Amino acid sequence: MPEKNENPVYARFVTEMQVRPDDIDLYSHVHSSRYLDYILAARFDQMERCYKMSMQEFAALGFGWFQRSLTINYKRQLEIAERFKVETGIEEFLKDGVIVSFKIFKANGKLAADGTCNYALIDMNTRRAVALPQEILEKYSI
Amino acid sequence: MPEKNENPVYARFVTEMQVRPDDIDLYSHVHSSRYLDYILAARFDQMERCYKMSMQEFAALGFGWFQRSLTINYKRQLEIAERFKVETGIEEFLKDGVIVSFKIFKANGKLAADGTCNYALIDMNTRRAVALPQEILEKYSI
Amino acid sequence: MPEKNENPVYARFVTEMQVRPDDIDLYSHVHSSRYLDYILAARFDQMERCYKMSMQEFAALGFGWFQRSLTINYKRQLEIAERFKVETGIEEFLKDGVIVSFKIFKANGKLAADGTCNYALIDMNTRRAVALPQEILEKYSI
Amino acid sequence: MPEKNENPVYARFVTEMQVRPDDIDLYSHVHSSRYLDYILAARFDQMERCYKMSMQEFAALGFGWFQRSLTINYKRQLEIAERFKVETGIEEFLKDGVIVSFKIFKANGKLAADGTCNYALIDMNTRRAVALPQEILEKYSI
Repeated sequence: MPEKNENPVYARFVTEMQVRPDDIDLYSHVHSSRYLDYILAARFDQMERCYKMSMQEFAALGFGWFQRSLTINYKRQLEIAERFKVETGIEEFLKDGVIVSFKIFKANGKLAADGTCNYALIDMNTRRAVALPQEILEKYSI
Repeated sequence: MPEKNENPVYARFVTEMQVRPDDIDLYSHVHSSRYLDYILAARFDQMERCYKMSMQEFAALGFGWFQRSLTINYKRQLEIAERFKVETGIEEFLKDGVIVSFKIFKANGKLAADGTCNYALIDMNTRRAVALPQEILEKYSI
Repeated sequence: MPEKNENPVYARFVTEMQVRPDDIDLYSHVHSSRYLDYILAARFDQMERCYKMSMQEFAALGFGWFQRSLTINYKRQLEIAERFKVETGIEEFLKDGVIVSFKIFKANGKLAADGTCNYALIDMNTRRAVALPQEILEKYSI
Repeated sequence: MPEKNENPVYARFVTEMQVRPDDIDLYSHVHSSRYLDYILAARFDQMERCYKMSMQEFAALGFGWFQRSLTINYKRQLEIAERFKVETGIEEFLKDGVIVSFKIFKANGKLAADGTCNYALIDMNTRRAVALPQEILEKYSI
């Protein structure tokens, strides 16, 4: 009889992007806050393409995702016009959100940054976190 | 008998701001698109402080201002942490919008940029331009 | 005997991009200043891919391109996650720069914005505009 | 005989800023990555005004500050045009950098976000972290 998996491992997905000129800062590499924008862009892409539930579908159901916390470690700089990859995946389901880990890879495959985000599922009417509906849990548990 | 003023001149207002580090680009001066953000920030400030009708009040009435066109001439660069001034004023009332001219001045008083914006007054329900209500015309005709 | 072409028409190039979540503003569509960032990103892409002279090559030669002026007409809004195209091409060579016209097309092919930019070629040592070298003129005259 | 202070407490400084319209995102509050830009802007202000060593002075000495990691907890949203305060201070000196903690306060005094940043002091020639020079240690140990 199979035991219940205590530590499920969820699928990880990869989005390719390119640095825009306006992402470059006074040190001629990508500005530190833009890495957060890349992670969010990757999540939007993967929600639609991989989890089959786009942000627009969440919005249509009256939901939003608010960031509760983030930890990021910057390892190597992204350069002007560089093509990079953002890998994300769910680490853990919370009652009212998810913990997502991410890795950003440079064009040469080396790690540019990694870390974790904690996102709360928000009822946009009350603007408060709500328990994850079963439908969302299922779509995300891949 | 006084003649009708064919060319009314409207009040001009000034907002002081400071360059943020994230505004700086690969050439170590303010990125060209951020000048547009400064103009918008100045308009928001002046709408509340000078015209006595904040963007939030417009929004509460169901209105928004969408930019229809913009011409900007870049004259001198804004530098890191520079304190600068944005002067704006109405050049002309349109049936469904306004033409605003702007001048951005460096800390030393020299011209950094100038130009004009055409803003449409939008009914946020239909997302279409509407005729300027009398109340708005009056508040702006100073 | 062929007559000199008084009105040469230069090649036009197209770059595809996608709206990032951080480009969206309080009206839930792309913020007006981000259109300028898209145009710049398209030029960077086309300089490398189409004119065969990347910004990094310009920089290695001690040159930069500074924007001298811009006129943009906003026609239709770009939406969240929308895939759009930016077409640009040279309208005219100036002694010390170029006039570039651009069109931004929505995913449905309709025009989102158009306009023109005037870019000066800058000697990065003096930070002043310089005459276009023959090599650049040739690479761009396609 | 006084004992060595094992846990020195360093001065904390406060910078006031205002939300710009371009900081607002699709949820009509400040975009999550802009909080990082506010923290950086506060550090730049405080380096010049409080520590008496501006970023430009660091740059003139051949130094830069690169962010090595960041943890941020989002507590309450910053709103359009809101005036807020960023308090920062050094938590700990590293051999080749500093750990800075920050708190962002809303106009009503409530906490909007808090967290810590790890900044490395970079020799801009080698682009590698270097030991903090005595002069910088002294200016910062207030």
